[in-house]
Amino acid sequence: MLSPAYLAATLLLALRPPLLALAARPIVAGKPAPTEAAATARWLAAQNTWGVLSTISSDLSGAPFGNVVSYSDGVPGECHGIPYFYLTTLDPTARDALEDERASFTLSEFPLGTCGKIDPENPTCAKLTLTGKLKLIDPQSSEADSAKAALFTKHPEMKGWPKSHHFQIFKLEIKNIFLIDWFGGPKPISPTEYLEYGKNQALLKSS
Amino acid sequence: MLSPAYLAATLLLALRPPLLALAARPIVAGKPAPTEAAATARWLAAQNTWGVLSTISSDLSGAPFGNVVSYSDGVPGECHGIPYFYLTTLDPTARDALEDERASFTLSEFPLGTCGKIDPENPTCAKLTLTGKLKLIDPQSSEADSAKAALFTKHPEMKGWPKSHHFQIFKLEIKNIFLIDWFGGPKPISPTEYLEYGKNQALLKSS
Repeated sequence: MLSPAYLAATLLLALRPPLLALAARPIVAGKPAPTEAAATARWLAAQNTWGVLSTISSDLSGAPFGNVVSYSDGVPGECHGIPYFYLTTLDPTARDALEDERASFTLSEFPLGTCGKIDPENPTCAKLTLTGKLKLIDPQSSEADSAKAALFTKHPEMKGWPKSHHFQIFKLEIKNIFLIDWFGGPKPISPTEYLEYGKNQALLKSS
Repeated sequence: MLSPAYLAATLLLALRPPLLALAARPIVAGKPAPTEAAATARWLAAQNTWGVLSTISSDLSGAPFGNVVSYSDGVPGECHGIPYFYLTTLDPTARDALEDERASFTLSEFPLGTCGKIDPENPTCAKLTLTGKLKLIDPQSSEADSAKAALFTKHPEMKGWPKSHHFQIFKLEIKNIFLIDWFGGPKPISPTEYLEYGKNQALLKSS
């Protein structure tokens, strides 16, 4: 979280290379501009395939517990921003959610390869944390059908995961959004702005 | 978290390609064998440069809050397994830790590129969660000096980050280790086994 003053400083410093600490941001085709916060958040959700889902651990006396999970927010070209997960209660994350719904889901731009040589913690390498409630989806609902299509399209391997492990579909009901994609601190985005983004535009294209 | 039965099933299924759901694990040079749990955990810590650090959010009424951060567990060739971070209280993670030390740090093998076409949630694509206490390091200590060397070697850009943001060094004091690197559930590793690994062997080589 670096200030506009830091940006100005790095631009000035750029006049005298070589410069180890310079953090100039490459232009990335497809990545929304830093002024487009909701678009950037939705781009991160559409482009990534995995992230870290954090819950309140029942095994570890309420400690925060982050777990690597795959997810999908829609079939490519029809992403809606809501992350769906395919979890089993053999794993602590699903068990935690069934006891305490509070959760956050964290994504980084870094694994997409578009941050170039910028450090993963540099604020111009975007990072998104969606906080809310991790909800089990009724397997008989139409929402479960579309979530399954979204998940299995992005993660075809899931189709073959063993039935005996009782994988279930969960979603994050988003209550708060934390996005850093430039200098100057987190961008204020409401869940409504995030979820409504693109509804009146061409559908988001995901990879 | 898939069972040995699933492994057997996939091996049988491999006899009749093509097979979409087959999750055969490629052999990766340098990656320890699945039987070597502590070695695998230390390999993940040494190879990665960033992860997700989860805290109990003071801004969000105690929700778990995962944040993308850079870290280092040592200069290459001398990694010790303890993740050190360079954080500012302008960011919620450091503020949270100063109010409630409980934290977890989560790493995936996936961004290393060694999982190949295996899904990020497949248990053979390794994932590590270190849970414990996120502690501020005394800036005058020798520990701070070695942590800074470790951080700045892996993240040279940090040296140029603005002094006005008052970055401070934190470390995760590890109390619990959750590693999935194969079928059959998490591997039991104690913090001592993890931290002692390699002490009587050639030093771990990190990238």
